[in-house]
Amino acid sequence: MEQRVSLITLGVRDPARAAAFYEALGWQRAQSPDGVIAFDLLSQTIGLYPLEKLAEDLGLPVEALGTGAMTLSHNVRTAAEVAPLMARAEAAGAEILRPAGPIFWGGTIGYFRAPDGHIWEIAHNPFSPLAPDGRFRWEGY
Amino acid sequence: MEQRVSLITLGVRDPARAAAFYEALGWQRAQSPDGVIAFDLLSQTIGLYPLEKLAEDLGLPVEALGTGAMTLSHNVRTAAEVAPLMARAEAAGAEILRPAGPIFWGGTIGYFRAPDGHIWEIAHNPFSPLAPDGRFRWEGY
Repeated sequence: MEQRVSLITLGVRDPARAAAFYEALGWQRAQSPDGVIAFDLLSQTIGLYPLEKLAEDLGLPVEALGTGAMTLSHNVRTAAEVAPLMARAEAAGAEILRPAGPIFWGGTIGYFRAPDGHIWEIAHNPFSPLAPDGRFRWEGY
Repeated sequence: MEQRVSLITLGVRDPARAAAFYEALGWQRAQSPDGVIAFDLLSQTIGLYPLEKLAEDLGLPVEALGTGAMTLSHNVRTAAEVAPLMARAEAAGAEILRPAGPIFWGGTIGYFRAPDGHIWEIAHNPFSPLAPDGRFRWEGY
């Protein structure tokens, strides 16, 4: 298996409402006439898909679909960018789980929970600077 | 917020055991001396992190951390690649949720559940061909 994630599918109660949350953070949708709301990212896509349909496709009961033991981190270029982005998420309807601030490994982070329960981290990692185009790797660019 | 996910953190019971699963699929780790096991992907990283520590960092009880309402899709270049990769995942300890086969939207997919509960899709999407280097976007390359 090559080392990539092509599509991150988020199961959501109401795709239009979920899309409004990500649009309020500044994202723009891709064209998608077919029941999935898609946002193209740097080299992959996030899709918003009805939770019941995801459960059906997976062959699992809806109640078996939890969130939380997987987090999505959006890294920024400077520590000063973390707090404003957390505030923007809160204004858009997110619950703040951990406010912007220093963390033990030397970075600056915050955690928020998006309206459907998916957990995002906003992080500045001084040891892993982003590439000019925003790409990330563990040992930095 | 720019359109990227920098780091996908998977909360796992036993990071070494979880790493063995991804290594059995053919992945190679990045150097990481600091308690996170990291795999650099095409333009982001997947980190394996102890579930209890993730819960602590988030300020949530471990029991609140579920998996499933978010799936990670690894797309391949041909439909014929889906079944062998599903078999490799099963051999490495995954549970097959949906065997490789056609799906209503015209692609070929399978779903498996990794040992810590995270759900992966192996997919061939004929409408969204990958870039030569494996990048994905909704409308294809």
